[in-house]
Amino acid sequence: MTKDKTKLRVSAIQNGTVIDHIPAKQLFKVIKILSLDKILEPITFGTNLDSERLGKKAIIKISNRFFEEQEINKIALIAPTAKINIIKDYQLVEKKEVRVPNEIIGIAKCVNPKCITNHENMTTHFEVVDKNEIALKCHYCEKITDQEHLKIFNS
Amino acid sequence: MTKDKTKLRVSAIQNGTVIDHIPAKQLFKVIKILSLDKILEPITFGTNLDSERLGKKAIIKISNRFFEEQEINKIALIAPTAKINIIKDYQLVEKKEVRVPNEIIGIAKCVNPKCITNHENMTTHFEVVDKNEIALKCHYCEKITDQEHLKIFNS
Repeated sequence: MTKDKTKLRVSAIQNGTVIDHIPAKQLFKVIKILSLDKILEPITFGTNLDSERLGKKAIIKISNRFFEEQEINKIALIAPTAKINIIKDYQLVEKKEVRVPNEIIGIAKCVNPKCITNHENMTTHFEVVDKNEIALKCHYCEKITDQEHLKIFNS
Repeated sequence: MTKDKTKLRVSAIQNGTVIDHIPAKQLFKVIKILSLDKILEPITFGTNLDSERLGKKAIIKISNRFFEEQEINKIALIAPTAKINIIKDYQLVEKKEVRVPNEIIGIAKCVNPKCITNHENMTTHFEVVDKNEIALKCHYCEKITDQEHLKIFNS
């Protein structure tokens, strides 16, 4: 039990999805992108946990939910280090990396204040032109939104 | 270990504050009011956990942080059922109920669109006229903001 107390911050789930290796400061953005505040299944979050690779990491465990690849890949924009673990009957049955999609529809706001998407009630649409540093080229105004300026819409 | 797996959703902390019995749908508001997204200590959250009293509850465990009474009582506005547990060396050393304060300064927005606090850059100020149902009387326009219309500012 001592080991549990000192090491284990967020307990195991029986069935569901574990999103690990989220940079700690991105936790609430991931919650927003996946609309986790609207899910009614049990969820546990841990944040500011020590991580050798990330310094401080966050982890999310969502019971009884399995996400579409497309849905979960959205978080690659803000947490490219995230690892997805699929749990069935307490066992890890699948491990996935998140992949930045080729296109981003909705989710992010165009950095250009003059862009039509910031003035009309319309969905943003970007081509991902750099998947490592994250650079999104707006389909409408062609301006580049980089990771530093990336704003995620409230869902 | 079986009991841990099925029962224990969020693990013990060594030192810090546990906020239990938060109505599940209020979790993210409590996080906002206490600015937990800005704390750098380890935090775990659990939500949509079964609760006999609340139906679904949330719990927050914050390591190495002890809040001022005034600070934590702010959450009484949105989570009056919350119980505060102070943990030292894995032991529960103090249990507190949250108490709705007599006055609320800042935190909440006045329901009256014509109120000066909604037009000038100034801090809201309410007298709490009903602590059970939550009714806040604005110091400036005297309109009542009830729990249903209560909006919490982003901190």
